[in-house]
Amino acid sequence: MRFIDKLDRMIERNDSLLCVGLDTDRSKIPKHLSEKKEGLLDFNRTIIDETSDLVCCYKLNMAFYESIGVDGIKLLMETINYIPKDIPTILDGKRGDIGNTAKYYASEIFKLYRADATTVNPYMGIDSIGPFLKYKDRCTFVLCRTSNPSANDFQDLIVSRDNLPIYQIVARKIKEWNKIGNCGAVVGATYPEELKIVRSILGDEIPILIPGVGKQGGDLERAVRYGTNSNGKNAIINSSRSIIYASSGKDFAREARRSAEKLKNDINLFRQ
Amino acid sequence: MRFIDKLDRMIERNDSLLCVGLDTDRSKIPKHLSEKKEGLLDFNRTIIDETSDLVCCYKLNMAFYESIGVDGIKLLMETINYIPKDIPTILDGKRGDIGNTAKYYASEIFKLYRADATTVNPYMGIDSIGPFLKYKDRCTFVLCRTSNPSANDFQDLIVSRDNLPIYQIVARKIKEWNKIGNCGAVVGATYPEELKIVRSILGDEIPILIPGVGKQGGDLERAVRYGTNSNGKNAIINSSRSIIYASSGKDFAREARRSAEKLKNDINLFRQ
Repeated sequence: MRFIDKLDRMIERNDSLLCVGLDTDRSKIPKHLSEKKEGLLDFNRTIIDETSDLVCCYKLNMAFYESIGVDGIKLLMETINYIPKDIPTILDGKRGDIGNTAKYYASEIFKLYRADATTVNPYMGIDSIGPFLKYKDRCTFVLCRTSNPSANDFQDLIVSRDNLPIYQIVARKIKEWNKIGNCGAVVGATYPEELKIVRSILGDEIPILIPGVGKQGGDLERAVRYGTNSNGKNAIINSSRSIIYASSGKDFAREARRSAEKLKNDINLFRQ
Repeated sequence: MRFIDKLDRMIERNDSLLCVGLDTDRSKIPKHLSEKKEGLLDFNRTIIDETSDLVCCYKLNMAFYESIGVDGIKLLMETINYIPKDIPTILDGKRGDIGNTAKYYASEIFKLYRADATTVNPYMGIDSIGPFLKYKDRCTFVLCRTSNPSANDFQDLIVSRDNLPIYQIVARKIKEWNKIGNCGAVVGATYPEELKIVRSILGDEIPILIPGVGKQGGDLERAVRYGTNSNGKNAIINSSRSIIYASSGKDFAREARRSAEKLKNDINLFRQ
């Protein structure tokens, strides 16, 4: 099944556009777990158990796992394996390299980890993205307008040829590259006006991954209104830290569920 | 010691601007090694033994190691540990993410792997690069004008504000970010005119990592003439596949040395 269909099915089943980001860090999980050898995996399993009926997908940011070394790689594999097979997984690596190298990254993400989707950086152009797009049933989300303050260093610069900012040129390319329905875009909730424009460029079919509503302070109402398509779908609202670290005590599981449920419901208030 | 000084010392000692790229792949190494469990490490050790008096540094592309999984991570660590401590290592990951995540990538590369330098992608701006620049004695090479054919998808677009292409805006930012001498640039040998312009923007002090002279077909003479500074230094000419896979037979070690030596000497012919 294509990513986009798997996503749609889960949006329907759980009535949710929420993506929980499993950005797991030993220094931030509850103490009774951080002291245990398998504590990180226990933490991830608990978060998944508590939220799997509330999400449309999970996102795992590779940096958090890679920075641990060998044990982190094992943790990443075990976590992905633990996620119920019908819930799509986005392995967030923001990779980008020449074609010959991108092939290895695509193989890592889609074959080794068997993720359903990933994120890539557009700076090197289509050569660096093509090897990912060869995986027809997966989805490759291309960074378009990111959620961080310095996104404007380059993404907002106006290109004279088109009299448009770079991020809109990237959005047009994503539309062009989406020949078989396996391309997506990343646009931060912190820039709602830009999100609105990107949705208008992409049309209804292309999913947008929207980080930045939690700790980064993005505007939820506009993220949902502007990010969804005309069916109130295809926007994936990601929150990591404000859900998984909702409490640092023994009640972390209940509090994570409570904040995931609240965010899921808040999102639905704004869906058309 | 700062990366830039360590590099300079090795350029002097080995009279070389050559960087050997250890892009090791089980399907490409000689058969008598690929069949052995420790074959990849044996291969890397042999290449290092044969070339350590010919290079100014080594580059390891993370994709080749990560795509193997846990064993690849161990191989990457063991390879970095095997490289003589006075030869700088560049861990080529082309990472780029929001500040909170970039912190973890920087920790992975500089603390876990203890690499001397890395490569990063500029698309997300200074937030995504700052956490790397906090490592004062290392070097962060920012992608500027890459070696691949589709580099022009975005990097060459003219920005109206400055009437300059994006890659030159990036080069100016690199110059600005290089406050304490720990920033570098990546420019492909396949675009010599662009390399010349980037060197003129950067001045003498900033090193340029130049891939693309081997399999990618870049012009060596112009890569050296345009990439070096006024002292004939600070250009790092990388070659991976044409050196390490010079032969696929039992003579791979001798042939790798022979082609590294030839490239080192060819480079020196063009240094001022």
